[in-house]
Amino acid sequence: MSYFDAASAAPLHPVARQALLASLDEGWADPSRLYREGRRARMLLDAAREATAEAVGCRPDELTFTSSGTRAVHTGIAGASAGRRRIGRHLIVSAVEHSSVLHSAEAFEAAGGAVTRAPVTRTGAVCVESYVDALRSDTALACLQSANHEVGTEQPVAAVAEACREAGTPLLVDAAQSLAWGAVEGPWSLLTGSAHKWGGPSGVGLLAVRKGVRFAPQGPVDERESGRAAGFENLPAIVAAAASLRAVRAEAAAEAARLRDLTARIRARVADVVPDVEVVGDPHRRLPGIVTFSCLYVDGEALLHELDRAGFSVSSGSSCTSSTLTPSHVLRAMGVLSEGNVRVSLPWGAAEEDVERFLAVLPEAVAGVRDKLGAPGSPATPTAADARGTGLVVDALGRRCPIPVIELAKVIGDVPVGGTVRVLSDDEAARLDIPAWCEMRGQEYLGEEPADRGAVYAVRRTS
Amino acid sequence: MSYFDAASAAPLHPVARQALLASLDEGWADPSRLYREGRRARMLLDAAREATAEAVGCRPDELTFTSSGTRAVHTGIAGASAGRRRIGRHLIVSAVEHSSVLHSAEAFEAAGGAVTRAPVTRTGAVCVESYVDALRSDTALACLQSANHEVGTEQPVAAVAEACREAGTPLLVDAAQSLAWGAVEGPWSLLTGSAHKWGGPSGVGLLAVRKGVRFAPQGPVDERESGRAAGFENLPAIVAAAASLRAVRAEAAAEAARLRDLTARIRARVADVVPDVEVVGDPHRRLPGIVTFSCLYVDGEALLHELDRAGFSVSSGSSCTSSTLTPSHVLRAMGVLSEGNVRVSLPWGAAEEDVERFLAVLPEAVAGVRDKLGAPGSPATPTAADARGTGLVVDALGRRCPIPVIELAKVIGDVPVGGTVRVLSDDEAARLDIPAWCEMRGQEYLGEEPADRGAVYAVRRTS
Repeated sequence: MSYFDAASAAPLHPVARQALLASLDEGWADPSRLYREGRRARMLLDAAREATAEAVGCRPDELTFTSSGTRAVHTGIAGASAGRRRIGRHLIVSAVEHSSVLHSAEAFEAAGGAVTRAPVTRTGAVCVESYVDALRSDTALACLQSANHEVGTEQPVAAVAEACREAGTPLLVDAAQSLAWGAVEGPWSLLTGSAHKWGGPSGVGLLAVRKGVRFAPQGPVDERESGRAAGFENLPAIVAAAASLRAVRAEAAAEAARLRDLTARIRARVADVVPDVEVVGDPHRRLPGIVTFSCLYVDGEALLHELDRAGFSVSSGSSCTSSTLTPSHVLRAMGVLSEGNVRVSLPWGAAEEDVERFLAVLPEAVAGVRDKLGAPGSPATPTAADARGTGLVVDALGRRCPIPVIELAKVIGDVPVGGTVRVLSDDEAARLDIPAWCEMRGQEYLGEEPADRGAVYAVRRTS
Repeated sequence: MSYFDAASAAPLHPVARQALLASLDEGWADPSRLYREGRRARMLLDAAREATAEAVGCRPDELTFTSSGTRAVHTGIAGASAGRRRIGRHLIVSAVEHSSVLHSAEAFEAAGGAVTRAPVTRTGAVCVESYVDALRSDTALACLQSANHEVGTEQPVAAVAEACREAGTPLLVDAAQSLAWGAVEGPWSLLTGSAHKWGGPSGVGLLAVRKGVRFAPQGPVDERESGRAAGFENLPAIVAAAASLRAVRAEAAAEAARLRDLTARIRARVADVVPDVEVVGDPHRRLPGIVTFSCLYVDGEALLHELDRAGFSVSSGSSCTSSTLTPSHVLRAMGVLSEGNVRVSLPWGAAEEDVERFLAVLPEAVAGVRDKLGAPGSPATPTAADARGTGLVVDALGRRCPIPVIELAKVIGDVPVGGTVRVLSDDEAARLDIPAWCEMRGQEYLGEEPADRGAVYAVRRTS
């Protein structure tokens, strides 16, 4: 088995395991107690906080351990926005944030706040100028991830943080995907992270709040962790998280270079070995271990099953919404193909031969899914214009991704150059995938019109 | 070292340790993923949920794992009260609940709700009739602990649950202290627990919500754990928690009998070996491992230090507010002596000889603290009435517990029988401890009057 889904969860780092075992014996007691076991637990907690703060680039008293990265985000956004309630009730997030940020934004809206969702370019990055344009005098908080969890694109956090500082608006950086590789640069105000993304145990997140940032914790008060994380400290896991962050940082430069080579190899070769593939995300400003691509005429879940059978664990679509039927909000915001989406996120130490083996099995896995779906075997070639003229309509109602696109591809050869075909579909993915198909195939996308059920997508054959 | 503070946190049960180690290897992946590692994690999570639900006495789909017992209480109270917002905005809690319940009640009040805090008797138990009297047509939720965390008194949960069911009001039971010993009886609606109280790891709480109970999760939505616990599941710890609950339950009956004998021994003998001690809590309806007593003329924190030096880890006052200067809300609600308070909570497997050693060192530890504070060496004996008549005033302003009571004890001998002495004190504990002293000493407490600073407590010498 090759596990290529480190962006979801990384296996426990050996150092984390060691630290966890040691602190199960030494750190189970209540660190707020004055007796021996309590003092020992307190020392472990203090040392873990100090080491983690150093890695994050903040003061120990600015750092709180939470029960998960998601909880850190929820707490951070709720507390920082409430702390500036008098300034205003406006929140900025990028359109490609992790679901924990977007769900916090929805809760903020439900409570009467206004949210701006900053768009991203086709590579998945926000544009600094347009993000900064969204800052208003009543902006309570701005949020921007350090790097995207689905496509690996790094965000221009330092520049955005600088602009936020000038505007006097705190910036919360969700650094869950990047903390293993280094500290977040720029004058951020709040930062969140998740230990199981860097090889630490699950059950540990972190929330840094810079001194001077107004912060009003929400919900019932609790004395622990500066009132920012309710409940008994998950101490052995916190110690393990701190130890593994230190360990991965020590190896980060070398491992980043190695993984970057491996993902570059996939980026470069996947389009050679598999026809009709779109590699997405920024080719340069990106995390070392993540590469994402989408395959025309492929059902992502079916491809995952094929790859699982071949011994590879990868994810597809949105990393946190795999149970839903709508395409990933990240791919949608980028405007790229969503069907047959695969995210490969290499874990620490991923072997070169496993990557080669992945590239070797991928073509067959994709072909197998396409066969089952009856996808067109090769790019459609122009045929003589037929008598059906410009009135061709493909009825794909009730058919799920990637069928509407497959049906479109099957008939395009029957459309005369200059002629138009309309696809009737009620599948959400079609809205994204039909334009993406046109771009990949060099056909002209004319737009969509509402229909009684779903929408009609019009395509003009140009070649 | 003898660790006698199991009610704060219990050392990891060997079974929990074993299960944790195994699931670190098998259960680190995301259980919502479809690949091999994810499916394995899902199986572990499902099995843990099933085993825990059986121990709790609910259906697996009624059980959610949270990041701590505190978080379970916060989530449970917020969700259940919001789910019945249309019924009304009234909440009932007992006056001796854990701080997580009381803090939730404060948040509920701050949001415009009304809270009834049901009183307890001198043993620490609510009276069923008076608790039930508090039920109103607009009561959204009632909360009652299964047993008290400071004095070990069991609450009449089954009877209260029955009455709540008849009234159509959901009852939330905080079962943190009792789950190791058995399931909670009666038709409760919601139940919370904390794994590190039963020998599981920290970082795991549980929240059971019976089918049919209206529940509206608060805060940002999250797909995991039925939307009731945000963030990645703390899976290895959950597996360990489930395994250890099963393990302790298998040994519960025998261990309960053994610990009950040991705490009964302390209850019976502490007053023999230490003068001026009040053992608190119900002598019969109580948890097996907890015994709590208060020592006149003793500073609780100083006594903790003495006992720690003698090799015993115990807690004092309120188990969750040890950093504050006010006496425990539990002892206050019971109306018992709070000074020199010691809670002994024996861990699983506590050795008889350690308990004997504790009883052997306790007298000297108490005497040492009393000596340093200049406490009266023996019960005051009546002396001849002197000329000062009834006008004696002890000025204890600025002096902290137990000094006001010590000063009172020092002068009582100078007061003629039938005469009155007044103690002027601004220490919160005096309000509790001066009446308690009167009861222990057979003197008459006349009541308190406000003063420019603090209050004046009047005592009539009767013997």
